[in-house]
Amino acid sequence: MGYRIGMDVGGTNVVTGLFGADGKLLRKSKTRTVKTSSQELLQQLADLCRELLIVENVSEQRLSTVGIGLPGFINAETGLVTAANLPFNDIPVAERLRQLIGVPVTVENDVRMIVYGESLRGAGQGFSHILGVTLGTGMASAWVTNGHLHGGAGGLAGEIGHIAYPDIPYMCGCGMKGCLETVVSASGIVRQAQDGLSAGWVGLLADRFPAHMREELTSKDVWQAYDDGDAFAGQVFQRTANWLSRVLIPSVALLSPDVIIIGGGVAAAGDVFFGPLRKYVAESLHPLYRERLLVAPPSLGDDSGLYGSAEYAAKRLIS
Amino acid sequence: MGYRIGMDVGGTNVVTGLFGADGKLLRKSKTRTVKTSSQELLQQLADLCRELLIVENVSEQRLSTVGIGLPGFINAETGLVTAANLPFNDIPVAERLRQLIGVPVTVENDVRMIVYGESLRGAGQGFSHILGVTLGTGMASAWVTNGHLHGGAGGLAGEIGHIAYPDIPYMCGCGMKGCLETVVSASGIVRQAQDGLSAGWVGLLADRFPAHMREELTSKDVWQAYDDGDAFAGQVFQRTANWLSRVLIPSVALLSPDVIIIGGGVAAAGDVFFGPLRKYVAESLHPLYRERLLVAPPSLGDDSGLYGSAEYAAKRLIS
Repeated sequence: MGYRIGMDVGGTNVVTGLFGADGKLLRKSKTRTVKTSSQELLQQLADLCRELLIVENVSEQRLSTVGIGLPGFINAETGLVTAANLPFNDIPVAERLRQLIGVPVTVENDVRMIVYGESLRGAGQGFSHILGVTLGTGMASAWVTNGHLHGGAGGLAGEIGHIAYPDIPYMCGCGMKGCLETVVSASGIVRQAQDGLSAGWVGLLADRFPAHMREELTSKDVWQAYDDGDAFAGQVFQRTANWLSRVLIPSVALLSPDVIIIGGGVAAAGDVFFGPLRKYVAESLHPLYRERLLVAPPSLGDDSGLYGSAEYAAKRLIS
Repeated sequence: MGYRIGMDVGGTNVVTGLFGADGKLLRKSKTRTVKTSSQELLQQLADLCRELLIVENVSEQRLSTVGIGLPGFINAETGLVTAANLPFNDIPVAERLRQLIGVPVTVENDVRMIVYGESLRGAGQGFSHILGVTLGTGMASAWVTNGHLHGGAGGLAGEIGHIAYPDIPYMCGCGMKGCLETVVSASGIVRQAQDGLSAGWVGLLADRFPAHMREELTSKDVWQAYDDGDAFAGQVFQRTANWLSRVLIPSVALLSPDVIIIGGGVAAAGDVFFGPLRKYVAESLHPLYRERLLVAPPSLGDDSGLYGSAEYAAKRLIS
């Protein structure tokens, strides 16, 4: 068992982490994603791996595996990768990269790698059954039980952001109306706040963002307004927590996780979001669940996905 | 690998099945459950096993395992069994029965054994990811993935009947208000119909069940009235399907099952229940799930639990 690399390949940046054989993160790098072609992006990924090895003075022969997490769909049978924000459209990423760097490569969905990393090395450490949810641009989940990452039929497990509810009025990028991720995500928080302001909300947020500036609003601004005392901004987080609880409540009864880890931009809001969320989940569940269930933020910060993809490749390719 | 026995130990009857080493059901027996004491019930179970062996002319030495499914909670760590409708209160059933019949014994929750049996030998055969729900006196679920029965933290997975919704007005036996199983179950169907009749519904059901007879109403009577043309009776099943879909929709997005198997008294109603259920689930899910998901009744009839417990013991104790 040698050194491992984990990579988080996003539409904006590639973050690469080099790990020792003991699983310790030794060094990481961050650079803009090359999006000109699949060939050039693959070459960039190989180069980034080599650069980290050189900087840490590790020979290529001592690298054993590379694991990649990316925002896309990976066909479990064919290994073909399709990712809307990357130049990958039915590309066998793992196989191509293996040819470029000479070690086995795994490619998995980025949310799954984040949750897998948290389950093994973060907030899920020491637990057997971990449900993870990320609330960023979109919303998705992953389920890890006894160290096994669940893929589901067709590899489709985890798309909880695309459940449609009649009381959610927004069109989703997926083509459906009322998808959960149109409200339960960083962009969903912004959308709710913009709608509220257009409907005549008054307060700090309205003062700070007059009509001509509303396009620039971010979920962080909504949180900041709440933190400074804007009641409407607080309601946005409460309502978001309530919508999320519709999925979490049945999930707890169905699977009995030890812990639900909720990460991403919205979760960073902290108590204004986690407080109501824990309340909504608790009041709808049998006390047996309530008493033991933890709902927690991630503990590895931005590195969850690096840990996850590095460990996933090591576990999967070496065993 | 020798003969196996599967037992379904209910509050009313014990059904015992003898299976060949090839997993074929050779013979079954059904008898009233002895409820005088744990000792006497355990002796009955041992006697029932011996009787089946004698009738089939199989020597006791060729019996390899006994598997039991019962309506109760089994502590996964201690093996202690507690079942409200059986004389078991913190009783180490598997260990005691092993002493009486001399072969290894497993004890699991009956709903899990039903779903496990269906997953291996019934409607889930050939699939990897199976979600099972039973709608009888109560409501519960089980999840089998790649042949592994999921227990969850504290062994608590599957109590989906005890999710409380604000628009469900009934008190549940568990002490909470608004539990799903107060409406999504055979007794829930009866309760909804009785409430409707009290509120002045007219039609076949009202004609057949005047006020002084309403206590005798069964879910089968509601189905019969629907089948004979009573519109209100049909609405009870549609509403029940709608309530159930609140749990099934998130479950599909979370786990991507190949098939959802729905058994028990309510499911026996057939199209009036499965039709709306499939519609509600489909219209709230992304097309990727819709296109591949099956929602099906069980295919082993009353024997699902026998197959499940026999197979479970054999798989678990011999491997």
